[in-house]
Amino acid sequence: MNRYEQIIRSIQPANSQARQEAASYIDSLIKPMGSLGRLETLAIDIAGITGNVRTGSLKKRTIVVMCSDNGVHEERVASAPQDVTVLMARVMAEGKSGMTVLAKEAGSDYLLVDVGINTDEKIPGLLNRKIARGTANFTKGPAMTREMCIKAIETGIDIVLQLKEEGCELIGTGELGMGNTTSSACVLMGLTGLTANEAVGKGAGLTDVAFENKKSVAARAIAVNEPNADDPIDVLSKVGGFDIAGLVGVYLGAAYCRIPVVIDGFISAVAALAASRLCPAAADFMIPSHCSAEPGFSRAMKELGKEPVLFMDMRLGEGSGCPLAFHLIDAALAMVNGMATFKEASVDRTQLVDIRER
Amino acid sequence: MNRYEQIIRSIQPANSQARQEAASYIDSLIKPMGSLGRLETLAIDIAGITGNVRTGSLKKRTIVVMCSDNGVHEERVASAPQDVTVLMARVMAEGKSGMTVLAKEAGSDYLLVDVGINTDEKIPGLLNRKIARGTANFTKGPAMTREMCIKAIETGIDIVLQLKEEGCELIGTGELGMGNTTSSACVLMGLTGLTANEAVGKGAGLTDVAFENKKSVAARAIAVNEPNADDPIDVLSKVGGFDIAGLVGVYLGAAYCRIPVVIDGFISAVAALAASRLCPAAADFMIPSHCSAEPGFSRAMKELGKEPVLFMDMRLGEGSGCPLAFHLIDAALAMVNGMATFKEASVDRTQLVDIRER
Repeated sequence: MNRYEQIIRSIQPANSQARQEAASYIDSLIKPMGSLGRLETLAIDIAGITGNVRTGSLKKRTIVVMCSDNGVHEERVASAPQDVTVLMARVMAEGKSGMTVLAKEAGSDYLLVDVGINTDEKIPGLLNRKIARGTANFTKGPAMTREMCIKAIETGIDIVLQLKEEGCELIGTGELGMGNTTSSACVLMGLTGLTANEAVGKGAGLTDVAFENKKSVAARAIAVNEPNADDPIDVLSKVGGFDIAGLVGVYLGAAYCRIPVVIDGFISAVAALAASRLCPAAADFMIPSHCSAEPGFSRAMKELGKEPVLFMDMRLGEGSGCPLAFHLIDAALAMVNGMATFKEASVDRTQLVDIRER
Repeated sequence: MNRYEQIIRSIQPANSQARQEAASYIDSLIKPMGSLGRLETLAIDIAGITGNVRTGSLKKRTIVVMCSDNGVHEERVASAPQDVTVLMARVMAEGKSGMTVLAKEAGSDYLLVDVGINTDEKIPGLLNRKIARGTANFTKGPAMTREMCIKAIETGIDIVLQLKEEGCELIGTGELGMGNTTSSACVLMGLTGLTANEAVGKGAGLTDVAFENKKSVAARAIAVNEPNADDPIDVLSKVGGFDIAGLVGVYLGAAYCRIPVVIDGFISAVAALAASRLCPAAADFMIPSHCSAEPGFSRAMKELGKEPVLFMDMRLGEGSGCPLAFHLIDAALAMVNGMATFKEASVDRTQLVDIRER
């Protein structure tokens, strides 16, 4: 048995007793029942993940950014040339990209991982876990071997195990790699049977002509590779990317370590879906952030049973939605830790209780 | 001329040059154009408000919470008895309510104002600016006199002038008062011609029977008072509340002082709409936060030309959405202040630019 399979076997669902106790405690706080909406469900989800009704704070937080290139880029599916992956990795390492400034603002670290950038250069500031110099062009055959896919997944798992050892309490997911909305759309198609028309979007920005091409490339990738929806590793290796597979490992590792892990945009959501197909219980540890503009995003969320709370029209990637969600998590924990209960406020619950409950 | 009218005359629209310069600057940052979506438009809005392309931070922030009672409460439109207004004011003053813990978490002060709570008690921790002990029951005649309404508006203006003097850079709006979703629905109906079916919601929580009653009460209030949609002061005095009128003053004061002011939920949005009817330019200074569950909320937003970004299913009131929006404002400013430009990163813009722009 592979190590990732052992990890999956060890993953237990969220703690349902802690969830129930958290829900009861939140109902005892001095407000109309349910009136803090998604802050309440967020606090309940976190209680289920950590096993604590009142989790305190989750101050030590890291966004794991999987960076890699995609062979399918040569089919002209991306708005930027492939070497922009290296270029943006450098900007990130200098802390000057969108995600990195948002992460710092939210008190978060970030860990940039080269899991397959198409260069021999060691980029300063990136952790070198390169599987290969980019995937193969999956319109002509599989993107990677099954072994490579498993190695990428185990890379993600190992990173989380290491973060856990360093005291990390909250994880975000991010990615970088020109062409990776195409591989994500193909993985989504492979996992769900969606058509290219349903799964493919314009990524960071494409002309209408380039968009039509991207859809036909995605359709071709599925036709050529015939990925098996019942075997997520098959789908990931045939039409995925090292970044997506690496993030699958991050989700599995987070579930294994019982650390909340925030989903960013489309790529991150597709990786989350693949992880949940490998291990349904892993979904208990995932927290959605913003709604990506990519059409496949909502389908991935629906399959996961998640709904984002932020509607920011963002399509940057990098993990840029995670720092925004971290603030909402902080708010949810502040609610649990700071609000008075009816009892503490010496208020008879029936004084404030909803009429509908009477 | 009343003082509030002088203030309105002095309000100038947002600085369109600063907006344009901010938009250009944001387009020069190292990311696909527009890819940070609402963070970008938020930064542009703030530039227009402050007049600075890069606003630095808006760390000194206060949520102004207008607290008052509503005579219409006796028509059984609220889920809780009227003395819960006093009770919750005390919990807020102790920093133990929902809004107050969220505010502290977001580095925000709050200013609790008794603008018309139905008690003679001076509640410790509340600024006493009481107009009267609650409004009259507006199903039997006007809620307040025109003079009282103007006094409440000017109270809100004066509070912002004072906050400005103390260095406040960012304002949130909040309210407390049993029955105030009913008065808000009536003001919305008075300003827009919406029916009770369109404008009235379940507030913090009502049974179906109580909900039907609330709608018929609202319809009766409009029929009895016949508020004049072209005269927002008439609408506010006939079917409004001291809290709503006070918040109208907060919005006008913020526009006058050129301070960004965040809209919370339904009551706050209706006050924003009334303020914008008195002074259309005041809307330039308003920033939406979350989407309230009240059906009238979306209509008020549409009239204001605003769209919330947070979908939290929250219906607590108190100003509880503002601290969440403050975090997004912090993120927008971090983007402007922290990201590299293409030039700073020594990147040829055409390398990364969207295909659609070529």
